[in-house]
Amino acid sequence: MINDITLRSDMTVDLLAHNGNDMDIANAARVSVGDGRGGNPYEISGLINYLMKHRHGSPFEHGYLKFHVECPIFVAREFMRHRAGWSYNEVSGRYSVLEPVFWVPTTTRGIVNEGTSARPRLEPDAFIANQTIAQMQSFYEEAWEAYRLILNGDVVNEVARAVLPVGIYTSFIASCNPRSLMHFLSLRINHPDNQYDTYPQAEIQEVAEKMEKHFKAHWPLTWEAFNAHGRVSP
Amino acid sequence: MINDITLRSDMTVDLLAHNGNDMDIANAARVSVGDGRGGNPYEISGLINYLMKHRHGSPFEHGYLKFHVECPIFVAREFMRHRAGWSYNEVSGRYSVLEPVFWVPTTTRGIVNEGTSARPRLEPDAFIANQTIAQMQSFYEEAWEAYRLILNGDVVNEVARAVLPVGIYTSFIASCNPRSLMHFLSLRINHPDNQYDTYPQAEIQEVAEKMEKHFKAHWPLTWEAFNAHGRVSP
Amino acid sequence: MINDITLRSDMTVDLLAHNGNDMDIANAARVSVGDGRGGNPYEISGLINYLMKHRHGSPFEHGYLKFHVECPIFVAREFMRHRAGWSYNEVSGRYSVLEPVFWVPTTTRGIVNEGTSARPRLEPDAFIANQTIAQMQSFYEEAWEAYRLILNGDVVNEVARAVLPVGIYTSFIASCNPRSLMHFLSLRINHPDNQYDTYPQAEIQEVAEKMEKHFKAHWPLTWEAFNAHGRVSP
Amino acid sequence: MINDITLRSDMTVDLLAHNGNDMDIANAARVSVGDGRGGNPYEISGLINYLMKHRHGSPFEHGYLKFHVECPIFVAREFMRHRAGWSYNEVSGRYSVLEPVFWVPTTTRGIVNEGTSARPRLEPDAFIANQTIAQMQSFYEEAWEAYRLILNGDVVNEVARAVLPVGIYTSFIASCNPRSLMHFLSLRINHPDNQYDTYPQAEIQEVAEKMEKHFKAHWPLTWEAFNAHGRVSP
Repeated sequence: MINDITLRSDMTVDLLAHNGNDMDIANAARVSVGDGRGGNPYEISGLINYLMKHRHGSPFEHGYLKFHVECPIFVAREFMRHRAGWSYNEVSGRYSVLEPVFWVPTTTRGIVNEGTSARPRLEPDAFIANQTIAQMQSFYEEAWEAYRLILNGDVVNEVARAVLPVGIYTSFIASCNPRSLMHFLSLRINHPDNQYDTYPQAEIQEVAEKMEKHFKAHWPLTWEAFNAHGRVSP
Repeated sequence: MINDITLRSDMTVDLLAHNGNDMDIANAARVSVGDGRGGNPYEISGLINYLMKHRHGSPFEHGYLKFHVECPIFVAREFMRHRAGWSYNEVSGRYSVLEPVFWVPTTTRGIVNEGTSARPRLEPDAFIANQTIAQMQSFYEEAWEAYRLILNGDVVNEVARAVLPVGIYTSFIASCNPRSLMHFLSLRINHPDNQYDTYPQAEIQEVAEKMEKHFKAHWPLTWEAFNAHGRVSP
Repeated sequence: MINDITLRSDMTVDLLAHNGNDMDIANAARVSVGDGRGGNPYEISGLINYLMKHRHGSPFEHGYLKFHVECPIFVAREFMRHRAGWSYNEVSGRYSVLEPVFWVPTTTRGIVNEGTSARPRLEPDAFIANQTIAQMQSFYEEAWEAYRLILNGDVVNEVARAVLPVGIYTSFIASCNPRSLMHFLSLRINHPDNQYDTYPQAEIQEVAEKMEKHFKAHWPLTWEAFNAHGRVSP
Repeated sequence: MINDITLRSDMTVDLLAHNGNDMDIANAARVSVGDGRGGNPYEISGLINYLMKHRHGSPFEHGYLKFHVECPIFVAREFMRHRAGWSYNEVSGRYSVLEPVFWVPTTTRGIVNEGTSARPRLEPDAFIANQTIAQMQSFYEEAWEAYRLILNGDVVNEVARAVLPVGIYTSFIASCNPRSLMHFLSLRINHPDNQYDTYPQAEIQEVAEKMEKHFKAHWPLTWEAFNAHGRVSP
């Protein structure tokens, strides 16, 4: 059935693998003073706060996180602008036929601008949201039909995919280290502790927040220091 | 008029700025031997060939090229996977309303697969191409109508853009150096002199070939050495 | 003559080439809004300050600076830890015989620690400085004699160089962009406007300050915004 | 005792941590085709060889290795020129007093050049080696005495270290991924299977070879494919 499409609003973030912890970051820093390892959490926390405060960034690169992400193409495009310390592999529209899963806003998402163009303030509006969701669903069904029609005409994937909207879901693997992750979090989450304001789109903020939970779980002292010093990546 | 869209098949590459030449690359290399500068083209060519042959890559990073590119989103997505030595700024679907310019294949582009899925061999088919172009045009008109309709419903750009297809044209500025450019060319052009086979999509190859012309014009000896040694970036 | 060595305390920084200016950075940013170019200095300054304040870093990557640096090896080692957005070519101790130029402190440099090891406060001491200079000179003469002696024994450069002290001068070419330069400046200059404290060694700060003069001359509005927003690279 | 120094010729490489294996690389690649995971070693090997042959490099970035390295400063300097995909933390001559461990050549190392300057061919010479070792030992003792003397004069570490020779041992932590490691191996090991010739200094080749053993142990199929395709990092 041609209009058999799935609508989603949420983002998926799974932690596939990780290596390292707060102690490893402290140990990497202590290499510089030829120091012994170990130490209690209080000492480790003190050292990590010192590194964060003075932007000694390199010790935070010794560690590894690998995520699986599902999100619309418009989110993946913003994500992959992060180059330093990030590695990606994404599902390809050349080598595979994509799945008919498409993004729509929730009814609680900011959807109308009650501010100015220079200083936007997005507010939800359930009526407009429902209307938009209906318009999108109708359109996505047409998009999926066009894609299938062109594919059925014996056309190769790489040409047919041109009609797919950026609201279609994609998935990718992303590897990073604690430093490159903190840089991503600093720019993609509008957080009250931010030293520098940032206004990310809500959907990439959701991805970032889900990543931050994993980061907090495995590097709790680093996460605390990140927050205590303005959420600017060291 | 809602269906007032423009169809394109070609890619635009303009060289906005550049700095450096073959002599600068030779001079960067000669720093390592504390050598004087200058030299005739024959000596410079010999040195550059030596560097290329032995993959002494760093001298090729001293130089600068800044391009303006217009291409469909599906091409820009492939392009921006190139991280090292590349800088980008692209038109934003959050901060602006995009232009209704969309990509369609030409009738001479490989559009059907006469090979296998493991070893594709794309061949043109004018009948299928014309049929596809018509289907795309009809669909793009609907996409543009849906986009305008949602925007007119007072919805913010960042939500409305979800319906835009990846065949819509985008534009961006890309800065690089000769080494990062050669790496891009080595992967995005299927060239008979390639030491390692590559099968890029035709549209990104067109972008790459247009960049290569500018590179050849300003770094002719480096370009020759790149070709003479298998088109593997040093 | 074995003790024919030269003593230096200063660092050399020459700007070999550059490309771009404040307007180019503004134009790179305006690509995102599909905006026209141009604008008066007041508008450009306002835009650049907005970018700096909100850490929109990518527009600051479109530009190019190429420096020639002369400094002791211990400074070059710190410098080349800066990886992202920097390219280097340095004189090689394998392919050439180094020059007998060695670093000594000036008599006004902080040379004794009047603080603690955790909170050092370096103060000059002319007597100790002169004594150190004399000791260093004597030692450097021996180092140079040992180097020459081993080379004269028919030993290859790459082995003989092991005896050269890290106080010997080296020279290198360094290419960067405005963003990577600002990151370097933020960490290598102890400046009253710094949002985050940093305590670089005096010699690399001298290199950084000389680079900053060139940066200020060619990107004056960007330089002002960098200072106005805590000297944290965007 | 002033001449209480230690002489070494060997390099230390310890694998402190690692994450990932051949299957993970295959899985990262299969993301692009939306494929399931798993597969037997034969299938995984076939896929990895395909990726290597066509220089699909990104799947090889999903993995992590963290090394501890002990080597002379002249080796560390060459090592840290590798920027992309590498992270470092090294013992600091500012924050600590270095240990009196110094490098000398073995008697079997190539030490005289029997070729030309353009085409060097290094050959061992036990007599010259022993003479060089004696000269170096004598000089290193003087260097260590000078360093201690200046430190004892109440001079701060960062000034006193200027007299330390580049033959002194340093230590650092280096994190990388399989792709950045293969790039390092391709340039720092003179190997008969190399597609592109390289002539690294013997000491950094020893570091590289020790790293390669760890790589081979944990990514055996990737290592085989790397060798089968000219040892050019994908």
